[in-house]
Amino acid sequence: MPNAPADALPDIFEAVAFNADGLVPVIAQQEGSGEILMTAWMNRQAIEKTLETGQVHYWSRSRGRLWRKGERSGQTQTLIDFRIDCDGDAVLVIVEQKGVACHTGRRHCFFRAVRGGKLETVEDVLVDPEELYKG
Amino acid sequence: MPNAPADALPDIFEAVAFNADGLVPVIAQQEGSGEILMTAWMNRQAIEKTLETGQVHYWSRSRGRLWRKGERSGQTQTLIDFRIDCDGDAVLVIVEQKGVACHTGRRHCFFRAVRGGKLETVEDVLVDPEELYKG
Repeated sequence: MPNAPADALPDIFEAVAFNADGLVPVIAQQEGSGEILMTAWMNRQAIEKTLETGQVHYWSRSRGRLWRKGERSGQTQTLIDFRIDCDGDAVLVIVEQKGVACHTGRRHCFFRAVRGGKLETVEDVLVDPEELYKG
Repeated sequence: MPNAPADALPDIFEAVAFNADGLVPVIAQQEGSGEILMTAWMNRQAIEKTLETGQVHYWSRSRGRLWRKGERSGQTQTLIDFRIDCDGDAVLVIVEQKGVACHTGRRHCFFRAVRGGKLETVEDVLVDPEELYKG
């Protein structure tokens, strides 16, 4: 597959301004609706696995390991497009999100909004988080 | 204005997990189209000015000062919605972007994409950057 996305790795590694920990922040956006689902981090390995498999992988800072989105919860992200910003310090992945992106069981993580002079929760829990991470 | 967005500041400052430099990363998204325009940083003052004026302000790390988006280029962002993610380490502002968001003269900053095994520029320059920052 000479035109496979993974062939773009040298270009990408040159274009991304990884931070001192070798990480870049990533925004995940739902294809079509444009909904911003979540933000997380990738290192070189996460980028490589994402492009190679078409399933979005991140680097977990808290667990110190590579993580395939949905590996426990089943709420996977299939890669549609991989983009880098002008100064290389942010990545945008456009994805097909299965189910809910947020560990709270909401569709996306940006569920707190300013309403009437207060910060309010404006998105419903769609799946019980205990169901997402059981077993 | 008891229900003014700025009244939500104590809630917001409690909810946001500012980093060691007192900053939080911010994603700007166009209302309606859902287009991701750019990412930048806010500190407490930038959040306060944004909510107070309805014009999006950021903290410039390179210049070490508060910055109203469009102050030189005229490419302003009017705030529509202010959101915080589940763990408080990212902010999403939904905005009405005037003109182009990117300093390269493109509508948004995420203009490099993987195409045919290479990283390619997939968005056109709409405004000459020299026109944006002249004078």
